[in-house]
Amino acid sequence: MKVVTSPEEIQILAQQYRSQGLLIGLVPTMGWFHEGHLSLMRRARQSVDRVIVSLFINPMQFGPGEDLDNYPYDLKRDCRLAEEVGVDIIFAPDKGSMYPEGFATTVSVSGLTSSLCGASRPGHFDGVTTVVAKLFNLTLPHLAVFGEKDFQQLAVIRRMVADLDFPIDIIGHPIVREKNGLAMSSRNTYLQKDEIPAALSLSLSITAVKNAIKNNSGQTITPADLKDIACQIVTEHPECEIDYIEIVDKTTLQVCTHLSEQSLLVMAVKINKRIRLIDNSLLMES
Amino acid sequence: MKVVTSPEEIQILAQQYRSQGLLIGLVPTMGWFHEGHLSLMRRARQSVDRVIVSLFINPMQFGPGEDLDNYPYDLKRDCRLAEEVGVDIIFAPDKGSMYPEGFATTVSVSGLTSSLCGASRPGHFDGVTTVVAKLFNLTLPHLAVFGEKDFQQLAVIRRMVADLDFPIDIIGHPIVREKNGLAMSSRNTYLQKDEIPAALSLSLSITAVKNAIKNNSGQTITPADLKDIACQIVTEHPECEIDYIEIVDKTTLQVCTHLSEQSLLVMAVKINKRIRLIDNSLLMES
Repeated sequence: MKVVTSPEEIQILAQQYRSQGLLIGLVPTMGWFHEGHLSLMRRARQSVDRVIVSLFINPMQFGPGEDLDNYPYDLKRDCRLAEEVGVDIIFAPDKGSMYPEGFATTVSVSGLTSSLCGASRPGHFDGVTTVVAKLFNLTLPHLAVFGEKDFQQLAVIRRMVADLDFPIDIIGHPIVREKNGLAMSSRNTYLQKDEIPAALSLSLSITAVKNAIKNNSGQTITPADLKDIACQIVTEHPECEIDYIEIVDKTTLQVCTHLSEQSLLVMAVKINKRIRLIDNSLLMES
Repeated sequence: MKVVTSPEEIQILAQQYRSQGLLIGLVPTMGWFHEGHLSLMRRARQSVDRVIVSLFINPMQFGPGEDLDNYPYDLKRDCRLAEEVGVDIIFAPDKGSMYPEGFATTVSVSGLTSSLCGASRPGHFDGVTTVVAKLFNLTLPHLAVFGEKDFQQLAVIRRMVADLDFPIDIIGHPIVREKNGLAMSSRNTYLQKDEIPAALSLSLSITAVKNAIKNNSGQTITPADLKDIACQIVTEHPECEIDYIEIVDKTTLQVCTHLSEQSLLVMAVKINKRIRLIDNSLLMES
């Protein structure tokens, strides 16, 4: 496995792969790999000749007061993990080479980005779409794999790719969970032991909502009822502050008025005002 | 020469050219070709195997009250002219295929776009950068040729390409002028015969400024003095309303405090409140 830090070098390498007729897959990450990231890399590995994993803690997608400076980072550890799942290249540029002086371009998606995480993190998705557009042009992938945990990011990236005609297949890959149900996240590393029960309330509320749907198959249960069930379970923990809990259409992110196979239960919860966790699940999987 | 209207089709074609190792050149246009456009096509022809000319009157770069609905259009005429200079493909999509329902993405460049044409045409450059990003992804060119008449567009596109890491060489190509000095433009077609003298004041003022520099080589002449000379010549015509006349750095578009080889005299003038003409020239070409 090769570690590349220069944007120029990764682009030349990608162009060489392209000219050799090799298929390229990209997995964009901010590092501190867990099983969730590794599953994205394995997914890419299945479909392409060369797997490129970008590892860049993108300052443009962090707001003031967010955890940019504390975000966990260990390149050596991450390289070892990536190599084990067959990654060919880690692209780990520094900030200065990605945003040199005079940088002035933003890629933004309207509508989809105004609610949910976009409402609490203004500018976040502009940072995401801008850096992803750069990564696409630098690594020239045929496909890119994104985790479904960041459901809004995935919807926004799909929109950008369709709108700007990037010739890239976007693949969403399922959430990987700890045995106790907690959705894997690099930010779980911030959790202290006594905060785990509060953190588990997210996945528990998803299970409760799914059970409520199963048990009410004969009767009408509205998205509003289901939202109440989830909110109740989360707010039982005084450490939890709900940022949002909603049932939305997975493509448009519009709040659902009735349940369908597109209905996605989505949530963001702040634990002890320090750790913002997100989770989501489709409610009527076929 | 082939005319392609489908974005999907042009992208597949471009991918085929790429996989055959052919070099692709793009010339983005809004049609109604004149010698200026044809010179861009010839320039591309020199360097690549396949010349694609896009012809799309991009609604996103027109503001309310601008000439979108009157913009001259004759695909048959344009195809004949393009074929004569050796163009391989005209890509002429319709609005619906470029901006389908739900389209929500904008590529924007800050700073460079706030002054000059950007100040009088809010949103114009967002429309330009967004459509050019789409055209780049649809036609996958190795190089793209833009006219230097649209100097601000050229600076903005160069910025976007550098910032988003598009692997594309951007080539600026010199202004082509009528024998009388008028910079060629599709919008010249709006000029009535008695408006020609007013329209010529733009190129005449450029000549006057250049002469003033030559004749003052021993003494100091400031950009402010030169701006005055140009303004005076243009305002002699009551039909002319100056939008801007400035001497700016050709890359940063910042107003020059002293002359250098980067100094560009730029102007936009409205003739009889109907026809907005632009022109520019480097002042100290080596």
